[in-house]
Amino acid sequence: MAYNLLKGKKGLIFGALNEKSIAWQVAERAYEEGAEVVLSNTSVALRFGTVNELAERINSIVIPADATNIQDLENLIDKTMERFGGKIDFILHSIGMSPNVRKGRTYDDLDYDFFHKTLDISAISFHKVLQTCWKKDAITHGGSVVALSYIAAQRTLYGYNDMADAKALLESIARSFGYIYGRERGVRINTVSQSPTETTAGGGVMGFDALLDFSNRMSPLGNASALDCADFCITLFSDLTRKITMQNIYNDGGFSSMGMSNRAMAVYNRNLEECKDCK
Amino acid sequence: MAYNLLKGKKGLIFGALNEKSIAWQVAERAYEEGAEVVLSNTSVALRFGTVNELAERINSIVIPADATNIQDLENLIDKTMERFGGKIDFILHSIGMSPNVRKGRTYDDLDYDFFHKTLDISAISFHKVLQTCWKKDAITHGGSVVALSYIAAQRTLYGYNDMADAKALLESIARSFGYIYGRERGVRINTVSQSPTETTAGGGVMGFDALLDFSNRMSPLGNASALDCADFCITLFSDLTRKITMQNIYNDGGFSSMGMSNRAMAVYNRNLEECKDCK
Amino acid sequence: MAYNLLKGKKGLIFGALNEKSIAWQVAERAYEEGAEVVLSNTSVALRFGTVNELAERINSIVIPADATNIQDLENLIDKTMERFGGKIDFILHSIGMSPNVRKGRTYDDLDYDFFHKTLDISAISFHKVLQTCWKKDAITHGGSVVALSYIAAQRTLYGYNDMADAKALLESIARSFGYIYGRERGVRINTVSQSPTETTAGGGVMGFDALLDFSNRMSPLGNASALDCADFCITLFSDLTRKITMQNIYNDGGFSSMGMSNRAMAVYNRNLEECKDCK
Amino acid sequence: MAYNLLKGKKGLIFGALNEKSIAWQVAERAYEEGAEVVLSNTSVALRFGTVNELAERINSIVIPADATNIQDLENLIDKTMERFGGKIDFILHSIGMSPNVRKGRTYDDLDYDFFHKTLDISAISFHKVLQTCWKKDAITHGGSVVALSYIAAQRTLYGYNDMADAKALLESIARSFGYIYGRERGVRINTVSQSPTETTAGGGVMGFDALLDFSNRMSPLGNASALDCADFCITLFSDLTRKITMQNIYNDGGFSSMGMSNRAMAVYNRNLEECKDCK
Repeated sequence: MAYNLLKGKKGLIFGALNEKSIAWQVAERAYEEGAEVVLSNTSVALRFGTVNELAERINSIVIPADATNIQDLENLIDKTMERFGGKIDFILHSIGMSPNVRKGRTYDDLDYDFFHKTLDISAISFHKVLQTCWKKDAITHGGSVVALSYIAAQRTLYGYNDMADAKALLESIARSFGYIYGRERGVRINTVSQSPTETTAGGGVMGFDALLDFSNRMSPLGNASALDCADFCITLFSDLTRKITMQNIYNDGGFSSMGMSNRAMAVYNRNLEECKDCK
Repeated sequence: MAYNLLKGKKGLIFGALNEKSIAWQVAERAYEEGAEVVLSNTSVALRFGTVNELAERINSIVIPADATNIQDLENLIDKTMERFGGKIDFILHSIGMSPNVRKGRTYDDLDYDFFHKTLDISAISFHKVLQTCWKKDAITHGGSVVALSYIAAQRTLYGYNDMADAKALLESIARSFGYIYGRERGVRINTVSQSPTETTAGGGVMGFDALLDFSNRMSPLGNASALDCADFCITLFSDLTRKITMQNIYNDGGFSSMGMSNRAMAVYNRNLEECKDCK
Repeated sequence: MAYNLLKGKKGLIFGALNEKSIAWQVAERAYEEGAEVVLSNTSVALRFGTVNELAERINSIVIPADATNIQDLENLIDKTMERFGGKIDFILHSIGMSPNVRKGRTYDDLDYDFFHKTLDISAISFHKVLQTCWKKDAITHGGSVVALSYIAAQRTLYGYNDMADAKALLESIARSFGYIYGRERGVRINTVSQSPTETTAGGGVMGFDALLDFSNRMSPLGNASALDCADFCITLFSDLTRKITMQNIYNDGGFSSMGMSNRAMAVYNRNLEECKDCK
Repeated sequence: MAYNLLKGKKGLIFGALNEKSIAWQVAERAYEEGAEVVLSNTSVALRFGTVNELAERINSIVIPADATNIQDLENLIDKTMERFGGKIDFILHSIGMSPNVRKGRTYDDLDYDFFHKTLDISAISFHKVLQTCWKKDAITHGGSVVALSYIAAQRTLYGYNDMADAKALLESIARSFGYIYGRERGVRINTVSQSPTETTAGGGVMGFDALLDFSNRMSPLGNASALDCADFCITLFSDLTRKITMQNIYNDGGFSSMGMSNRAMAVYNRNLEECKDCK
């Protein structure tokens, strides 16, 4: 169901790869709600994914850009504003990748070039997008920016590795730049801390299925899906949330406020007797 | 501007007194968004306020109830469901009052009967509403409940007195009951931590004008108004936020994430020179 | 091992019942560290417990008081100051009880007189102690007050019931009064959020053993014991923590900062296979 | 006054420059409490500071190391263990520097090589120290590691620039590695969030004096000094806090729990009338 919540608004969406992507769902929902959208991802991602399909369906274009590369970003912002015939109303940052996770380097054996890359791709890219837009005065007064995060920024999850640190940095950048953008340009910047979903950077971590199940049973409303996340992002891009900024908001079925649920305990407790020696 | 975000939904709204009230604004916005609304407040408030005017305008009815009184609440819920011909989709709790503040009892000289009253009126009433609805199975699966809070629940503000403790209790109740309502009924419960507004319980505290100014200059987007709050509440009642529960979300122009702003410092600094001896 | 950390200091300790009590352990450790101690508990607790034994061992006296009763508290503070020949340097509040938990009233079926009692005993009693001391100017400049809390104040744990709300209120009172005591009297007030221990109010909740096991495997350092808690309280009463106030500090082996641990997942995962239908 | 709290313990302290340094104060206090200490800083810092003086006084040695350089760290850890004849019991990380701040690059005009350097020096260096120690199994079971942080990690302060993001990253690293060190080696890792002090990285930020004054008047107990911080660090290195890990603890006179104080408001409010146009 659509409400025209974003009628006339123009948005730039980073990170759509395939239809499982949260960014993909956000793009579709934004389009349904009346927005005009530009999609961006790296050239590699564009080759492996099916973003052109999406672009066609929602009457969008795809502009390749490596979000860690300032020149790429400048080109992207210029072309996006050209396409829109003016400024950008909303931006979604859904970018994250850890070479350490990819290469199986555990957190007690990090490669530091990789670590810097994790931070550059997953967090500093957000600053680069914001600073590039800042210099070009590219975001409308009253505009809204969202980056996707995960609770690993606050609490350690086995196997999430240096992505946890990247998310903490990402959320800090949202606050730091949110202050300046709010004060000077009337633009709000928030992060959405989403349930683990099969498409996030979390997908690469060890024991992801078990984590998904645990998270689901811990959350009174169950895990939030990519579509649930898209729906919430739409409200953050709309004019109905004009005073919310510098926040990290959990779209997670209640997981973040749980210490222990009945449902998760039912599984945990089941064979505790036989499991005295489990390490 | 309206989007039909609450088309067909039915809501119960506590705490509208006059047009400055946040609850009043929420009721109006809910109506604009297609909802049918029932209003409730205490008999005293109904006499002093202008709620009937509002009721007429938005095609609503007013049912008096003391939200600390279970019998009143049972009657209210029964009549509300009768009016709606079914269950309730959303509830707003905007109730707060401290006899200690009213009577000028400072926090180091609390009257304990008053303290219990503060908690009963401002926080436990929320549990009573939720428990009464629980027993009558009065809230729709997928429904949404919001209570209004203030950052005093996390950080001490000079003069806010025992209302700070009441807000901390209120937010805890939202989490505690949110877990059960989420798990069993698919209902979400959140609190909105709103900027100080002239109509909230904060209005009675000492030095409110100065606080309002400080809060405004600390917040990159300025203080959120009652209407801003209403807009945000609409999104929380809509189907676009179905997985957000047990959260306390700041609708405060960024205040909660600020340590010190340029604008507030400009005032502070200016006075500092002449104020070396200020205690 | 003792360090004379509290040499010459005088402390009032609420809540010792038997040697499993955290308050008991704190009293013993305080004595070892050179402090003079007065013990207090309700008359009923004194009959059922073995506090006199402790008093003898650590050269203390026991003064009965119902900490929800102002007259009792006034008498207690007077007699304590008489015993000490002056002011009190530190206070431990380790008091909590929920009639709802005791009587098996679940959170969706609370008795409201009981709820007020839970809050009165477990949280407001802390305000009463502080306010009584305030009026008698009973705490030394540079003194330190600690109340014991639990993470249920922040996150919902299945079965912890209205004690969660009481702990949230308790922590808020610590902040609210901590501001005034800090500003006017140089006294600091903090809460220690302790691992579940067999002696805390948590002991009465459903499925406590499983919770204890889960908590232990989630915590990188394992659950903190009553003695661990006592050790930490000693540092908070000492002169080495003079600028820490209005804080809630976790003494919990790391539990509060964990999202999911390897060890807990090993148990969870093992059972998951056989437990596809667990609700 | 000394208590022999660290008798027989051996500690490595990064970041002492001159007697204003927190690290300097920690080294002195650790020595007074019976510890043996090794000091480390960069070669440049050693030339400009007076660390050798300190080393002589507390019977320590100084080993130069750039904490962003793995080879330097390996050499440092080897030599430290050689000096101690065994493992290290505690470590203090007090390292922070932002080339962007130094060069006057504001947060909306960051140089990204500088940004990476800020993170490398102020946060990733902490991971490098921990990982180097991990690989050499250099920290005693029951050992304790502390890094110094600042509330800018949670709340934006005008002018603190990319150091805020570095502190957020630092605190995340403490959690992430704290989980592994706790689980595998019984070592705890915490950060201390200290009041602004004239010697911290904060010293370089704009309007530091005014911030110091504001912070002092907002804090019920006033700002914590470098010596206050050292005292608290001693307790974290001692055996009395063995179950505290992955925490960020505020040693700040209560600042972090304040929304607005009477004292700060007295200054703010003073000439508010005449300041209607202050931006």
